[in-house]
Amino acid sequence: MDKIFRVNMTDLTCKVEQVPAEYKTLGGRALTSTIVASEVPPMCHPLGPNNKLVFAPGQLSGTPAANSGRMSAGAKSPLTGTIKESNSGGTSAQQFAKMGIKAMIIEGMPKDDKWYRLHVTMDGVTFEDASELVGKQNFDVIDAMNAKYDEKIGVMTIGIPGENRLAAANISVKDPDQKIRSHGRGGLGAVMGSKKIKCITTDATGAGKVEIVDAEKFRAAAKVFAKGMLDHPVTGEGLPIYGTNVLINILNEAGGLPTKNFKYGQCDHHDKVSGETMHDTIAARGGKTKHGCHAGCIIQCSQEYVDEAGVYITSGFEYETVWGLGINCMIENLDDCARIDNAMDNIGIDSIEGAVLIAVAMEAGVIPWGDGKETLRVMNEEIGKCTPIGRILGNGTGSVGTAFGLTRVPVVKNQGIPAYDPRSVKGIGITYATSTQGADHTAGYTIATNILKVGGFIDPLTKEGQVDLSRNLQIATTAVDSTGMCIFVAFPALDIPEVLPALVDMISARFGVEMSVDDFVGMGSKILKMEKAFNTAAGFSNEDDRLPEFFELEPVAPHNAVWDFTPAEIDEVWNF
Amino acid sequence: MDKIFRVNMTDLTCKVEQVPAEYKTLGGRALTSTIVASEVPPMCHPLGPNNKLVFAPGQLSGTPAANSGRMSAGAKSPLTGTIKESNSGGTSAQQFAKMGIKAMIIEGMPKDDKWYRLHVTMDGVTFEDASELVGKQNFDVIDAMNAKYDEKIGVMTIGIPGENRLAAANISVKDPDQKIRSHGRGGLGAVMGSKKIKCITTDATGAGKVEIVDAEKFRAAAKVFAKGMLDHPVTGEGLPIYGTNVLINILNEAGGLPTKNFKYGQCDHHDKVSGETMHDTIAARGGKTKHGCHAGCIIQCSQEYVDEAGVYITSGFEYETVWGLGINCMIENLDDCARIDNAMDNIGIDSIEGAVLIAVAMEAGVIPWGDGKETLRVMNEEIGKCTPIGRILGNGTGSVGTAFGLTRVPVVKNQGIPAYDPRSVKGIGITYATSTQGADHTAGYTIATNILKVGGFIDPLTKEGQVDLSRNLQIATTAVDSTGMCIFVAFPALDIPEVLPALVDMISARFGVEMSVDDFVGMGSKILKMEKAFNTAAGFSNEDDRLPEFFELEPVAPHNAVWDFTPAEIDEVWNF
Repeated sequence: MDKIFRVNMTDLTCKVEQVPAEYKTLGGRALTSTIVASEVPPMCHPLGPNNKLVFAPGQLSGTPAANSGRMSAGAKSPLTGTIKESNSGGTSAQQFAKMGIKAMIIEGMPKDDKWYRLHVTMDGVTFEDASELVGKQNFDVIDAMNAKYDEKIGVMTIGIPGENRLAAANISVKDPDQKIRSHGRGGLGAVMGSKKIKCITTDATGAGKVEIVDAEKFRAAAKVFAKGMLDHPVTGEGLPIYGTNVLINILNEAGGLPTKNFKYGQCDHHDKVSGETMHDTIAARGGKTKHGCHAGCIIQCSQEYVDEAGVYITSGFEYETVWGLGINCMIENLDDCARIDNAMDNIGIDSIEGAVLIAVAMEAGVIPWGDGKETLRVMNEEIGKCTPIGRILGNGTGSVGTAFGLTRVPVVKNQGIPAYDPRSVKGIGITYATSTQGADHTAGYTIATNILKVGGFIDPLTKEGQVDLSRNLQIATTAVDSTGMCIFVAFPALDIPEVLPALVDMISARFGVEMSVDDFVGMGSKILKMEKAFNTAAGFSNEDDRLPEFFELEPVAPHNAVWDFTPAEIDEVWNF
Repeated sequence: MDKIFRVNMTDLTCKVEQVPAEYKTLGGRALTSTIVASEVPPMCHPLGPNNKLVFAPGQLSGTPAANSGRMSAGAKSPLTGTIKESNSGGTSAQQFAKMGIKAMIIEGMPKDDKWYRLHVTMDGVTFEDASELVGKQNFDVIDAMNAKYDEKIGVMTIGIPGENRLAAANISVKDPDQKIRSHGRGGLGAVMGSKKIKCITTDATGAGKVEIVDAEKFRAAAKVFAKGMLDHPVTGEGLPIYGTNVLINILNEAGGLPTKNFKYGQCDHHDKVSGETMHDTIAARGGKTKHGCHAGCIIQCSQEYVDEAGVYITSGFEYETVWGLGINCMIENLDDCARIDNAMDNIGIDSIEGAVLIAVAMEAGVIPWGDGKETLRVMNEEIGKCTPIGRILGNGTGSVGTAFGLTRVPVVKNQGIPAYDPRSVKGIGITYATSTQGADHTAGYTIATNILKVGGFIDPLTKEGQVDLSRNLQIATTAVDSTGMCIFVAFPALDIPEVLPALVDMISARFGVEMSVDDFVGMGSKILKMEKAFNTAAGFSNEDDRLPEFFELEPVAPHNAVWDFTPAEIDEVWNF
């Protein structure tokens, strides 16, 4: 029987609650957002006692379904002030699901200054003294927990920036290889730090399999689903070979690769950090070109990047991070970028926000353009140790812009804009502007249709069709974020007719209900509106659904494109 | 003939324009807000090329009317993101008025990195090289300009924080004694810095008297008005003797004196920094207990505070600053407070924001509680030189709270809450919450009626009547802020029936119109709504009209009062 763990940090108790009937078929984002929307006062301070941090494995997490190993974390975001869902791979999602933990809701704050570790077992949560872990960065925390228990222990942890409640701090999750995946965006590490939780360990001893009501139906659907994943050129071929970084050359070709803090749309040195170069480098050095962020992943878009001696540098080295460092910060040396990526994992900073904010710091003159060594030092010694300049940077892109009085600050709702220029890939601009999460490419990944020609094609340079595209993808993504599936299932789902019904059938079989594709999309629509309503109650208005002014004022080469949607056109996203 | 100077910093031109008919009877806040609302896109970046900085002397500035020497500055605020009007004494207002400059509108930004000084004469504005002034603080700029011209030259200047576009930077204005008054609140110094204007000098050679259409009517009304000012106990007695700092003991008695970053409502050492102590100290040391911020002031609430040797330390040492440093930061040594006040004048930081943010920095552990010497060092060496920690602090109270992940951050719309606890003086809480300017006691000074029993009495601890009181005062203040009068004319205006009609008669006589008291109040109402509409178009919603959560969660001694207005009750302010 699934249950909810309600952890109260004020009186250090854990109540094990029955799952309310209305939560029965929910999971992931649908569940975290529903709980946050119903239990967190929208106007509360994100770092105060009234915010709650909610973890929920997806609807299919822990099942044998391919690519289903993701966990959602939700709260009111200290970075954006909006509702926030951030999902991550790693081992904790499947452990939670197999232990029957539908959600863990963490509320309140300790009355004293003590730090805690939550230890999660089948029986509930215990509150362990974390004083010896405080002041450690993430890899040391994982080592300490592996040493205390064994390598099977699940770990979700924050680094020193999270302890210091910096708004770019993430929650790092141990992956199957003792490395790190992240609940990256929106500063949820700061929320965990505000509740004085240094880390959450999961001991799944005694956990069985995830209960599936109709095993037969599940097996049949899972097979169709997995075949679709393998058949599609993006998930079956592009991502497995080159990882997400396959996009560098593609975006450069399209003129949508933001370069030097969004000054240009193409970059001369794109080849030096492209997915092709990265693949060949890893292969030549004897690293791993394929790697999954959780057990059961059949895409394996991650990798293990190694140095010339074959020694591990980093994994989960994604396109957005490589773009942010290699192109937007002009750091041409891929090894430097990899070391910075690893540093961000270690100190617990969102690697998208971290890369975007460094480019703004470079524009401010804090770090020379392209200086990877200095960026690495700043990560470890300034942000990692929360010095004054480290606090300015560790609070995100908007914080850097404010501190230095800059106007070219690529944020929406104070969250850094990732890897795709909204002027020359206009669909993603609509997603950035309107997402309930602040600027977030995953919230409605129009790159699929604008650039990769998945689900049809809409010219990225024209306004036509972009609002409908973004709306549809935002709704669908909200649903997919609830399944525990990685976002890339959207590629086959958009192109291969059997895939989405198979996904929905697995959910139906899991819970013993009859869910249609319409029901599934309807859930996405309902949750997205719920998130929007939370934000409205938190003080957000349509005027917050806008890109920064400089995208309207500065045409970007090579297309000389500007951001030219009217407010009324943008607001049409909410017409559903 | 009055005219408008339109200064374009992009092409370095000044157009002298006729005053549009609809601006004829406007001045001060009514004029700056009207121009900002009609010319500045509400969604523009406050530090970008589309913001405008507008100076306008009041309707009566430069006339012989008592206490009429104030200038309004307006723009979109980089601190609050709202429309902003900040008015100041000093010599520039009367010079502008006598030169017939109804308003100076500064727009655009230089294309290069050069710094300019605007030199204002009867003929227009010239653009002087300011490279030798850059990097100087305010008193050095004034000295340099006095040396270049003579002591009659008008000077409005920004310090190094303004050059660096920090959001607590003010615009400093030379007063009749070569000291400084300030357009303090809302970071207008950063707007001036963004336009690369280091200072504005005014040479009023050739200026005559301000044109008054009906001199006879004006003289008669001015006499009645001045008599009212002298007859009222607050403006005729309390303020002239003790200055605004008379309020320390009064607010302490009322339990509304925010102490140690709003932790308590009373302070044991209040006597050490009270107005009475300050008066006696100045008198014993041979300083000046009375001093006007502009020629023609008959209240003389300012002073010249001197050290034990009789050497000048500071002037314009207001209650809010003494409170902020002496009580809220627990700096018991009044000489230390005076030196910090002078440092804020010199570096060009709003002395209210500056004091409120230091208390938050003390809560963060950056400065020990009560350490005046270290606070002085931080002002001069960190904020004054824009070091990393100086940037965190110099960007205001909200910036400090964000950098250190704090929840007890007294701001509304990111502007620091001044000197009166909104839990125990509830009327002022309504003003803080709803003012179009962010937290601002002068925007609707309910202390008059809640504490000083001017204009009747409304118990500060009950909710009843506070919304009506704040609304009425906000409307009236918007009108008074347009006259060029200092805000203290409100005291006699509230209690002595002849004073307000006399004020309005002076305006009628000045412009040759028939303005009634209803017309005058109607102007206030219209401008306030215009400001609110600007803010709404800039993305503000009712939910931005709220106090920080900690005022609801923490009762304040001695009354154990909490902030207990419902959202709907607060929003009633806008019901007019």
